[in-house]
Amino acid sequence: MFGVTILGNNSALPAYNRHPTAQVITLNDHLFLLDCGEGTQMQMNLYKIRRNRINHIFISHLHGDHYFGLPGLITSYGLLGRLNDLHLHAPAPLHDILNLQLNVSDTQLPYKLHFHALNGEGILVDDENFSVECFKVFHRIDCWGFVFREKRKRRKINPEATAKYNVPVSFFERLKEGEDFTTDDKVIKNEILTKPNKPVKSYAYSADTLYHESLAEKMKNVNLMYHEATYLKDKSDKATSRYHSTSIQAASLAKLANVKTLILGHFSSKYESLDEFLIEAKEIFPNTQLALEGQTFIIT
Amino acid sequence: MFGVTILGNNSALPAYNRHPTAQVITLNDHLFLLDCGEGTQMQMNLYKIRRNRINHIFISHLHGDHYFGLPGLITSYGLLGRLNDLHLHAPAPLHDILNLQLNVSDTQLPYKLHFHALNGEGILVDDENFSVECFKVFHRIDCWGFVFREKRKRRKINPEATAKYNVPVSFFERLKEGEDFTTDDKVIKNEILTKPNKPVKSYAYSADTLYHESLAEKMKNVNLMYHEATYLKDKSDKATSRYHSTSIQAASLAKLANVKTLILGHFSSKYESLDEFLIEAKEIFPNTQLALEGQTFIIT
Repeated sequence: MFGVTILGNNSALPAYNRHPTAQVITLNDHLFLLDCGEGTQMQMNLYKIRRNRINHIFISHLHGDHYFGLPGLITSYGLLGRLNDLHLHAPAPLHDILNLQLNVSDTQLPYKLHFHALNGEGILVDDENFSVECFKVFHRIDCWGFVFREKRKRRKINPEATAKYNVPVSFFERLKEGEDFTTDDKVIKNEILTKPNKPVKSYAYSADTLYHESLAEKMKNVNLMYHEATYLKDKSDKATSRYHSTSIQAASLAKLANVKTLILGHFSSKYESLDEFLIEAKEIFPNTQLALEGQTFIIT
Repeated sequence: MFGVTILGNNSALPAYNRHPTAQVITLNDHLFLLDCGEGTQMQMNLYKIRRNRINHIFISHLHGDHYFGLPGLITSYGLLGRLNDLHLHAPAPLHDILNLQLNVSDTQLPYKLHFHALNGEGILVDDENFSVECFKVFHRIDCWGFVFREKRKRRKINPEATAKYNVPVSFFERLKEGEDFTTDDKVIKNEILTKPNKPVKSYAYSADTLYHESLAEKMKNVNLMYHEATYLKDKSDKATSRYHSTSIQAASLAKLANVKTLILGHFSSKYESLDEFLIEAKEIFPNTQLALEGQTFIIT
């Protein structure tokens, strides 16, 4: 399963029972936390997130609505007796903030917290089956987006074909890697002996950002893209002046990036109803959804 | 009106939809915030606290469950366009933490934040009608309790008596201060010309603390006392080792301090039901109540 669960979809000022930004990415057995606004640990309780499965946390930038829940979560992990290492990928100054907070409270965490300062762009996590990479977005302070990508999946054995051509089991691993089967007198093409695996899936999260065409390249062809839409289209001047985007801009970027599905979030507390965000965005990019709290978007 | 509204009654690990410590004190037109655990601003939304009336915030100590909601609240005040000065009374290191957080987020608050480092014991706020003082309690790190006291109220004019004895209106202010009315040939006692005002009321909050008899002196005779009861009586060893108290210890202190009403809070996340806290405490101090979230305790 590859999916995204929304824990918070509001911009900085909590309102209408909407919470500041936090998302949990599920990638098979792995969980990842993307941003951690105030109240994230309570939202995890509410939505029954198996928080102990989270070994990597990514913080896009140091506006409070994206990290003020982190000190509490880190402390609670300690109180819950967590022993597994925790990796935190975040802008460098967060390290000082957390150290100061842990020191003044005389807190010794029972687990190891690895701090990885974000710096430039590139791969942050390189697993056998997936990768997580970061890219810079356009905000008032340093801010990063993240892309989660499954790795190319090996081809699957076609048992009827391998039996027919007497391919020994010892050769199966090489078949899965795409090799043809060659004997003294014949070459059996790999496509005959194997079947394609499921296509690789991907998710891109562009955090808080101005609309900027160059971001389309960073998120090109992903299955699911999250783009902030703090304001509706009539507030595009305000969006620009605050380094945020509108519904229309988010949809335009989704179209430009040729993604399959767009989810919108980071709604301003000016808006009680979110209907208009969807209406505006769908005019440009029909496959748009609202990042509603508690909802999981499964990538199929 | 003099009352205490509970926004959070749980100890460090949020559980069962109970939140970390925060209380709002209402004293006539003034509101005060006592501690500010994660999620306090959301709890303020939920319980419709008029947050703009708060001009003083008191933080007892720097364990996260007592202040991790403060950076968010301070930032939200800015986003809401607050202009009134805000006074923060807290352990000194919090100043560095907040400054660091405001700096890295490039936040300029539109209001003035006055930081008053807690240091020793004594009066923190000295208003015409009330005072707030702090006292040291016994916790693993520096920790303070707070007492809110109304000041002595002036006596009230008895209009029938002042008419009968022809006391001029110009003398009324002196009557209210307790003076007798003296003419050439007679002395009319103040008690005849005035009536006593309502008795002064007081609230004491002892934050997180070990049971310690000396605290009774600090909270002597208050109308309403909050004392933490992290554990039930069977966990008194654990309470002591963690610098916390039990239900029984809180009740014993209330008795020793001769308070009118005791409220218990800071319950461990081990306990889903809180009934037993009340049962145990009432054996020693019958006028005990649980600090339930959303509840307001009015001092009568």
